[in-house]
Amino acid sequence: MIPSDRNWAPAPSTEGDTLPGNRWHASVLTLYPDMFPGPLGLSLAGRALHDGRWSLEATDIRAFATDRHRSVDDTPAGGGAGMVLRPDVLDAAIGGVMGPGDARPLICLTPRGRLLDQAKVRALSAGPGCVLLCGRFEGIDQRVIEARGMVELSIGDYVLSGGETAALVLLDACVRLLPGVMGAADSAAEESHGADGLLEYPHYTRPADWQGRAIPPVLLSGHHAEIARWRRAESERITQERRPDLWARHEAKQRGAGGMDGHPAAA
Amino acid sequence: MIPSDRNWAPAPSTEGDTLPGNRWHASVLTLYPDMFPGPLGLSLAGRALHDGRWSLEATDIRAFATDRHRSVDDTPAGGGAGMVLRPDVLDAAIGGVMGPGDARPLICLTPRGRLLDQAKVRALSAGPGCVLLCGRFEGIDQRVIEARGMVELSIGDYVLSGGETAALVLLDACVRLLPGVMGAADSAAEESHGADGLLEYPHYTRPADWQGRAIPPVLLSGHHAEIARWRRAESERITQERRPDLWARHEAKQRGAGGMDGHPAAA
Repeated sequence: MIPSDRNWAPAPSTEGDTLPGNRWHASVLTLYPDMFPGPLGLSLAGRALHDGRWSLEATDIRAFATDRHRSVDDTPAGGGAGMVLRPDVLDAAIGGVMGPGDARPLICLTPRGRLLDQAKVRALSAGPGCVLLCGRFEGIDQRVIEARGMVELSIGDYVLSGGETAALVLLDACVRLLPGVMGAADSAAEESHGADGLLEYPHYTRPADWQGRAIPPVLLSGHHAEIARWRRAESERITQERRPDLWARHEAKQRGAGGMDGHPAAA
Repeated sequence: MIPSDRNWAPAPSTEGDTLPGNRWHASVLTLYPDMFPGPLGLSLAGRALHDGRWSLEATDIRAFATDRHRSVDDTPAGGGAGMVLRPDVLDAAIGGVMGPGDARPLICLTPRGRLLDQAKVRALSAGPGCVLLCGRFEGIDQRVIEARGMVELSIGDYVLSGGETAALVLLDACVRLLPGVMGAADSAAEESHGADGLLEYPHYTRPADWQGRAIPPVLLSGHHAEIARWRRAESERITQERRPDLWARHEAKQRGAGGMDGHPAAA
């Protein structure tokens, strides 16, 4: 198990491709720095952290409070329930982790953001890293969002007690795409996964007969073309059934590719 | 900080409403039980865990392997990249945590599932708890999914290294809705949040002037009706801009409520 220090900086790697200067670097601003690296200290992300393929620093927003109660929030202007994180405290916290030439995007995890998807994950993982601001249930003063040019992102249409678990999800999704993190087999699976915007077909493995349930015979036939056809049909069936939104997008794309209207939908 | 034991069972609460018998109970099946409770051992969910408002047990799938290498997966029938979790091992692991009368839903977290949303979170938190199966990047044998009547859920359209961070998100979302977990102020904010399917309006708090940026005067006017109007307009503007899908659903619902076609869209 990887130690769960807040600011976990591994010794410089002996491998040439992971020099500290170009390592993918994540900074997290949170009221709960002890939540990090948490699950990202284990398994794929944990090994990559240990190997110096990325680095992670969690900073306590409360350390930038200026009054003697160390308060970070106040009541909302105009009234209403909940509390709002102060712009001055957040701005100081951001300044504490982002130096003048820092090119990393500053992302605020919030249900009012645009939805995270795999295209955004790919773009983020191809960059220098990211700075993640985790709000709690309360809001964040709009002026610091605008002054700092924050990108507001949501991981889905549900409400969390704070942005921390969303930050863990975003980081896990990005880190697995960094060079050298996935093995060759998983990378190959990644290539095929969802490339056509469909959900995955069903999987089967040993034993061939389990509790009277057999593997579909076509998968044991050795006919590669028939196997590919069966899997494609299953992917289409499952996508239609579970995600009519993805299916509609897929069909629009197919029509576009077929040249029927000359306007292929964006990938 | 709450201790991070794998099977964290607090002493029976002294409060009458949280008897062990009716406590919301989550069981997680994973190859990485040390990832739990992780971030859920702190803050809102951690206090609720400590207070006995819910309980969490993480079980290592590998403990149910039967060969001497303790293998849990095998190559996919029909060929292809990646590995597939075996039905016999998973079935034994599920049997290890779900007794005969266990009414909790068995949920598999996977990108091929239906999308999690706040309606599903509410339904789950109103039940007796849940059993969560976390796959890794590989697939799960379809026969055990069918034999056990698993519900496949996805937290969003991105790929994770495993279902563990998705499980943390789902649990956090459910736990905050359990009776007594949120304070009165947050509960009140919850009531209003997203009730009309729109994203939240911008928030502001002290200082009134920050770096030359002022709070919109209407919010300091004291005119409640005007404040409500301004917030509504901002919510609509932000939803149209960031989530055309939610905006379209909102408009369809408004049309339905207006009696124009007599078929209000489902909430």
